Amino acid sequence: MKIDGTHYRSIWREADGTVQIIDQRWLPHELRIVALTNRKEFAAAIRDMWVRGAPLIGATAAYGVAVQMAADPSDASLAETWQVLHETRPTAINLRWALDEMTRVLKPLAPADRAAAAFQRAAEICDEDVEINHRIGVNGLEIIRKIAEAKGGGRVNVLTHCNAGWLATVDWGTATSPIYHAVEAGIDIHVFVDETRPRNQGAQLTAWEMLNHGVSHDLIVDNAGGHLMQHGEIDLCIVGTDRTTAQGDVCNKIGTYLKALAAQDNGVPFYVALPSPTIDWTVRDGVAEIPIEERAQAEVTHVQGKMPGGVVGQVLISPEGTPARNPAFDVTPARLVTGLITERGVAPASTKGLAAMFPERAG
Amino acid sequence: MKIDGTHYRSIWREADGTVQIIDQRWLPHELRIVALTNRKEFAAAIRDMWVRGAPLIGATAAYGVAVQMAADPSDASLAETWQVLHETRPTAINLRWALDEMTRVLKPLAPADRAAAAFQRAAEICDEDVEINHRIGVNGLEIIRKIAEAKGGGRVNVLTHCNAGWLATVDWGTATSPIYHAVEAGIDIHVFVDETRPRNQGAQLTAWEMLNHGVSHDLIVDNAGGHLMQHGEIDLCIVGTDRTTAQGDVCNKIGTYLKALAAQDNGVPFYVALPSPTIDWTVRDGVAEIPIEERAQAEVTHVQGKMPGGVVGQVLISPEGTPARNPAFDVTPARLVTGLITERGVAPASTKGLAAMFPERAG
Repeated sequence: MKIDGTHYRSIWREADGTVQIIDQRWLPHELRIVALTNRKEFAAAIRDMWVRGAPLIGATAAYGVAVQMAADPSDASLAETWQVLHETRPTAINLRWALDEMTRVLKPLAPADRAAAAFQRAAEICDEDVEINHRIGVNGLEIIRKIAEAKGGGRVNVLTHCNAGWLATVDWGTATSPIYHAVEAGIDIHVFVDETRPRNQGAQLTAWEMLNHGVSHDLIVDNAGGHLMQHGEIDLCIVGTDRTTAQGDVCNKIGTYLKALAAQDNGVPFYVALPSPTIDWTVRDGVAEIPIEERAQAEVTHVQGKMPGGVVGQVLISPEGTPARNPAFDVTPARLVTGLITERGVAPASTKGLAAMFPERAG
Repeated sequence: MKIDGTHYRSIWREADGTVQIIDQRWLPHELRIVALTNRKEFAAAIRDMWVRGAPLIGATAAYGVAVQMAADPSDASLAETWQVLHETRPTAINLRWALDEMTRVLKPLAPADRAAAAFQRAAEICDEDVEINHRIGVNGLEIIRKIAEAKGGGRVNVLTHCNAGWLATVDWGTATSPIYHAVEAGIDIHVFVDETRPRNQGAQLTAWEMLNHGVSHDLIVDNAGGHLMQHGEIDLCIVGTDRTTAQGDVCNKIGTYLKALAAQDNGVPFYVALPSPTIDWTVRDGVAEIPIEERAQAEVTHVQGKMPGGVVGQVLISPEGTPARNPAFDVTPARLVTGLITERGVAPASTKGLAAMFPERAG
């Protein structure tokens, strides 16, 4: 989407062949574009969240394989790259999908042919992601359009959590794609952006996206959404997901479950936007089966931002010595999800609903 | 409770007659004790949250009236002081209660007698608060003791939101009083402390209290409680309240409602600890009737903490220009509340339950 009027993707190949990304750690205060030139840099970019978001992680991993194939196209290198990149973010199903897909394409080829094929497949994965997200947007737009019509053209208020925006994908985003499509369709739309502690991806990335693309929005703390729903200020929620199970349970950034509970309690539709590669057909009960990564305590005890003077740094918000727990994701049970907005259409969040929409994938 | 082994209250009168408070804006990084010497300082202390928490606001207002009576004990001064102090935090029912109480005591007196009577009544209000909170602790302790017994002496895990600790009262706290009593009773207890954005009172005050008193605890982001409840890591929630209605609806720091929803969804008992002056018998439907203050956008877009180098400052977490909404409280409907821990006992959160426990107050 747009930054200062110019269209960008979140990952792209320059004319000279180098792979470029936006180093998202510096957003929203600074737009830093960096080249990733070797596997170590790709691993760091994924692990240390220079890039994040399931689809973009997948696309980055695909290009990581390609860059490594240019350096060493051997079988051992291919296998090792799968391992090295997979262990950077074990919860992300797209990461595994992209690595498996690259391996599937490259393994049968002679080593000498692998680099070119890998760059081609990585580019296709990016284009496929853009097309999938566009389709998600078209399908989600219909939901927003109906609400706008029911309100007689009144403002449609959407709450979103974390960043399932274009910065989390190659373009359009997942949760934001219906929003961007609604903006293009001329619908009066307003976005309440959960800041999304501990890493504040909402405040840092979604708010930045909205501001740069010119979408009406308000930043709110993660605590505020329930109150706004109680008072009729939210018409629908749309969030993304890192992993959705075969029965429609939704693993997403920590705190998503709380918003889904509030949506249910107030009769607010709660939608999850997802590209179908994000569905993990091997898992059913998300709460019981999905391992949730616990991240560093410092993410909880510290907050990053722009300090007086303009330097980006971290402040300690708690007393020295206070310990913290930091589960990074939670699982929203399917019963709380109104629908799953996929590239094929809006599926009920159920085994039946998903199987009907993806008969070739469901076991 | 204790700081470094020494017992403190949150407001006290020195031997020379000056009223001292802990300026809580500097916690948890620095313990600053300041004297409040005139009405303007008392108003600032309440409005700008040098002190916060319903009972402590009430006690501070009472001393504010006393200090003003020492300066000007006229009827006009008394009436004006009610106005000046009341408008500092209009949502706080205790503030109004304390101002009404001081007016009730002082108005019949000759101006010359008012200062001494005011200081005496303010001291009594403080002592009454300590006694009330002690009783809340004794009553809440029984709930914790039963859970500890059901777990065969295993660790009891409590989640709390915001700071309803001794720093929010004169001593003991409300939500924390059962916890401190459990610690004294030798029960193995662990506290999950919601950081409580936007002002992070949990991270700054509750964590500080726990650390200084030696209570086992973990700081968590406001998003994490639901996940922990889904996985059996929370045995009960205890929160405070700024205002509870005659039917048991609970107005408390923004985000409380979300935790109550998660507690209900996971069968976790959700208790609210409150001194009975916090009950607003004139209000029934909290969601419909209680006005919720919207505070400054900067509380959402900025976070205060200790910067590298040790100075306390604020960092900007969102892009320049992003607007914010900042409702400071929400209302948890009585249906989500397991019980109200009062100084008289644990009441069901219902019109009937509250009326049975406070027959002389209920209409």
